[in-house]
Amino acid sequence: MSDRIIESLTNPTVKAVRALHMKKSREETGRFLSEGLKFVGEALDLGFSPRILMVGRDARPHPLLERAMAETRNAGGEVIRVTHDILAKVSRKENPQAVVAVFEQRFADLEALKPETAPCWVALEDVRDPGNLGAIIRTADAAGCGAVILVGDCTDPFSVEAVRATMGSVFAVPLVRCTREAFLAWLQTWPGISVGARLDGAVHYRQAAYQAPTLVVMGNEAQGLSPEAAAACELGVKIPMRGRADSLNLAVATGIMIYAVTDTLES
Amino acid sequence: MSDRIIESLTNPTVKAVRALHMKKSREETGRFLSEGLKFVGEALDLGFSPRILMVGRDARPHPLLERAMAETRNAGGEVIRVTHDILAKVSRKENPQAVVAVFEQRFADLEALKPETAPCWVALEDVRDPGNLGAIIRTADAAGCGAVILVGDCTDPFSVEAVRATMGSVFAVPLVRCTREAFLAWLQTWPGISVGARLDGAVHYRQAAYQAPTLVVMGNEAQGLSPEAAAACELGVKIPMRGRADSLNLAVATGIMIYAVTDTLES
Repeated sequence: MSDRIIESLTNPTVKAVRALHMKKSREETGRFLSEGLKFVGEALDLGFSPRILMVGRDARPHPLLERAMAETRNAGGEVIRVTHDILAKVSRKENPQAVVAVFEQRFADLEALKPETAPCWVALEDVRDPGNLGAIIRTADAAGCGAVILVGDCTDPFSVEAVRATMGSVFAVPLVRCTREAFLAWLQTWPGISVGARLDGAVHYRQAAYQAPTLVVMGNEAQGLSPEAAAACELGVKIPMRGRADSLNLAVATGIMIYAVTDTLES
Repeated sequence: MSDRIIESLTNPTVKAVRALHMKKSREETGRFLSEGLKFVGEALDLGFSPRILMVGRDARPHPLLERAMAETRNAGGEVIRVTHDILAKVSRKENPQAVVAVFEQRFADLEALKPETAPCWVALEDVRDPGNLGAIIRTADAAGCGAVILVGDCTDPFSVEAVRATMGSVFAVPLVRCTREAFLAWLQTWPGISVGARLDGAVHYRQAAYQAPTLVVMGNEAQGLSPEAAAACELGVKIPMRGRADSLNLAVATGIMIYAVTDTLES
C-alpha cells in the first residue's frame, strides 16, 4: 500500500490539519495536533493512535517511524507524505518537526474517577494560560497524579501550545472538564482531603496533614480560587511569600503544591 | 509643559519603541519594554524611571499615572500621548495596556554579589524559554533570592515575553549574565553550598543539608546541567519522579528547588 503524497498547501486535508490551531475546529472535529515523532511513540504506548500521520518526505528512516506508520494504517488512520513547507505551515514554525500527528481528544468523566487509585489529584479553576496548563499536566504526570480536572472556564488542554507544554503528558494524564457547579457537587463525595492553595490560607503548605487521596485545588492566574471553591475545600494552605513579589506563576505554585503532597505521602 | 502627542505609526519614536521586540535593538539601545501602569509603579518604587512613557490618549486619570508622568519628566524622560492603534502595535496585542514604558536594562556584576545578604541564590545555565526565565525571576522575587545568574547562552531576560512573565519582578531581582568559564571560576569563591538539580542526583532534594547561602544551579530545558557545572556543584540533588514523565518544566523544577531551600532555611 503506498501512502498519499501531498504537495499543495491548499489540499483539503492540509487545510483541515492547519485548522486545528483554532478552537472552533478542535471542538467541531474532536481532534488535536501533536508534533514530533517522540510523542507519537509515547501516544502509541498509551493507547492513542493517529488519525492522520504527516511525515516529511525527507524524514530519515527510524524504527519508531516505521512502527508509527504501521500502527496508524492498522488502526484505520492515514499516513501522508508531505513537503517541508506543509509541515512548516501546519506547525506554524520555520523549523518544524519531521512528523505531525492528528489524534482524537479524550476527556474522562468526573464520576468515573477512582480516588483510591492515586495519592494526589489536581483541580484547576478557570486556568487561562495554555503554557501553564501544559506544564501542570506534565507535573501531574511526573508526580503520578490521578487526573487533572478543569473546572469552569479553562483554556483548552488540546490547543497546540498546551499540548507542546505537556511534552507528551497530554496522552498520559486523564483530563476532566466540568462546570463549577458539577465540581462542587462532586467534591461533596470526595473521600480524601481537598486542599485549596490561597494567599490567605490558614496552614503552611508544608505543615498540612495530607492523606491519600489529596485533591489539590488551584485558582485562576489573576483571581485565585473562587470564594465558592475556597469554601468547599476542607483545608486552605498558604505557600509563604518571603520576598517582595506576592504571588507565583500558577504552574510553579501548582508544582510546589503537588510535590508538597506527594513528598508527604511518600515519606 | 505639554506632552508630545503622536498619532502616526511611522513616527520615529514609535518605530524605535516597537523595535524593542527585537533582540538586536535591545542590545543596541540597552533598553526594554514594560507594559501596564501597575508595573511602572513598581519600577518607580524600585528606582527605575521610564525613559519613555507612552500613555493612551483615552487613559483614565489615576494618581499613579500622575505620579508616573511627573517622575518620568523629572528624571529627564519623555511622556508621550498616543492612540490606541499605536499602543496595540507597540504591544503586538489587540487589547493593549493603556501605558507602555521604556526602561534602561540593568545587569549586576557577578563579582559585586554579596552572598551573605540572601539565603538563596539561583543560577541558570543556557535557559532557552523566555516564559520559563520570567517565571523563575518571579519565583526568585517571591522567595527573597539574592539574584538570578544567567550562565552561558541564556534567553534575554529583557525580551517582551520574559518581562511579561516576571510580572514586575524584572525590576526587583538583580540579574547577572556571564560566560560558563566566568561562572565556574566565581563558583570556586562561593562561601556557601552550591546545589545542582540533576535527574541522577545522589540526594533527595528535600533531604539535603542546605545552609545559607545556598546557590541553586539549574540546567537547560532539554539537556539539563552541563557536565562542567554539575561537577562544580558541591551537591547533586534529585527531584523524585513518581509517575510516567521523567522530567519537569524548568520553571516548575526551579520553583520546587527554591522552595525546598528556603523552607529548610526558615524552619
